[in-house]
Amino acid sequence: MLALTILGNNSAIPAFGRNPTAQILQNDDEAFLIDCGEGTQLQMSKYKIKKGKISHVFISHLHGDHYFGLIGLLTSMSLLNRTQDLHLYAPPLLENILQLHLDAAATTLCYKVYFHALGDEGPIANTKRMNIACFKVKHRIDCWGFLFSEKKRPRSIDPERVRLYEIPASFYPQLQKGEDYTTKKGVLIANADVTNAATKHKTYAYCADTIYDETLSAKIKDVDLLYHETTYLKDQHERAAARFHCTTTQAAEIAKKGGVKKLIIGHFSSKYEVLDQFLVEAKEVFEHTELALEGACYKI
Amino acid sequence: MLALTILGNNSAIPAFGRNPTAQILQNDDEAFLIDCGEGTQLQMSKYKIKKGKISHVFISHLHGDHYFGLIGLLTSMSLLNRTQDLHLYAPPLLENILQLHLDAAATTLCYKVYFHALGDEGPIANTKRMNIACFKVKHRIDCWGFLFSEKKRPRSIDPERVRLYEIPASFYPQLQKGEDYTTKKGVLIANADVTNAATKHKTYAYCADTIYDETLSAKIKDVDLLYHETTYLKDQHERAAARFHCTTTQAAEIAKKGGVKKLIIGHFSSKYEVLDQFLVEAKEVFEHTELALEGACYKI
Repeated sequence: MLALTILGNNSAIPAFGRNPTAQILQNDDEAFLIDCGEGTQLQMSKYKIKKGKISHVFISHLHGDHYFGLIGLLTSMSLLNRTQDLHLYAPPLLENILQLHLDAAATTLCYKVYFHALGDEGPIANTKRMNIACFKVKHRIDCWGFLFSEKKRPRSIDPERVRLYEIPASFYPQLQKGEDYTTKKGVLIANADVTNAATKHKTYAYCADTIYDETLSAKIKDVDLLYHETTYLKDQHERAAARFHCTTTQAAEIAKKGGVKKLIIGHFSSKYEVLDQFLVEAKEVFEHTELALEGACYKI
Repeated sequence: MLALTILGNNSAIPAFGRNPTAQILQNDDEAFLIDCGEGTQLQMSKYKIKKGKISHVFISHLHGDHYFGLIGLLTSMSLLNRTQDLHLYAPPLLENILQLHLDAAATTLCYKVYFHALGDEGPIANTKRMNIACFKVKHRIDCWGFLFSEKKRPRSIDPERVRLYEIPASFYPQLQKGEDYTTKKGVLIANADVTNAATKHKTYAYCADTIYDETLSAKIKDVDLLYHETTYLKDQHERAAARFHCTTTQAAEIAKKGGVKKLIIGHFSSKYEVLDQFLVEAKEVFEHTELALEGACYKI
């Protein structure tokens, strides 16, 4: 099971009780933190996300509403005596910033942080259950999107059928990979006859702050869930472009062109207290849209 | 009127809904921010503190629970189009840290920040209504306390009495300063006969993270309100000393020796969910003690 929890959905200034951007993507074994605005560690406590489960952190860009909560989270992990490694993927300058904060406090973290500077598009991480790649989005400063793909799962063996054909347990791993079995007498047992297809591996794409960019639709093609920023309503498209942000209909256009299954939108401007119109406008272009609401968990 | 609002009272890791250290000291015209843990700008919104009113910020030391919220607050002030100057008093390294954050975001603030590096004990600021001095406290890294003193207020003129003696309005400023008046006929009118004493000017001392240090009692002598850190209960005095922190009874001893009017205690360790015992123990030594509770406003 792959699920996304929203910890913050507001842009720039926290407003109306809405926090800056942070999301948690979790499967049964792993938790990934995507962006980390100020107060993320407090939001994690509020929504019962265990800090210790997070193995990888992905920071899209160095505007404060996407990372000012990171140094607090990292030092709290140390105060909680974390031992496991943490992998951090971020623009290169963040490494200097973190080091300066630690130096100022005369502190070293009690666990190892592997800093991976983002530079080229392509694969960046390969975990137990996931492959993760990054791609460029167009913002005022260097900014990245992230594509999370579950690894292909093994086919599941039908216990009655393998017994019927007397297939030895030593051959099960091959069956799970999709191979056929040939009996000692030379009879071919088709794989599909003794196994069932695995659950489809799911994909999630995160498009951080970006101006409207049609080329994104190819980068997030066919994903099960797309998060795309939607800072403004559609009447503000000029302001959006001037600030390298998107409107509701622009985000929905990317989802539609990309043929994704579902879209969630967030990073709402502090000028909006009520968010209903965001959903109305996006749905006019792409029906399967939902608002990224804080605390909500979206199963993928 | 001088009043102190507590925005955070926890140490190190946020816990049990308690936030890291931040306080606002306000008089009728001015607001001073003292320390600025992560989430302070969110706490300011929650407790209706206007960011625009803050003219001076004082950072005691560079452990994260005392300043990780500052960069977020400063950038939010800029996004809100602040125009007035901000004066920031802090350990020297903070200037580099802030600059690195701004450089990473390719941002400049739209208002002027005057950075005042803390170095020697003594007066540091002189505002319309306040004099502010800093003094050293003993922590694992350089750390400062702050002493806020209201300026002496003018004596108030009794309108009926000045009319009775036909004292000209041009002499009122001298009367407010306490001078006597001599009539044209050479009759001396005693100042006390035509004016009333001003309200006593109040004082507030903030003792940030510190080990027990008896010399502090002289630095905060006779203040109207003393805030002193109290990270642990008294049975943890060895742990407190090892970490350069204080216990309940140690904070109360400083208040007692300093002859202060009232003590508030905070910076509670995350190991304590319930705080009642902090008050019980401190009151055993110094009766006029209160807990620094988030959102509470203490009139001085």
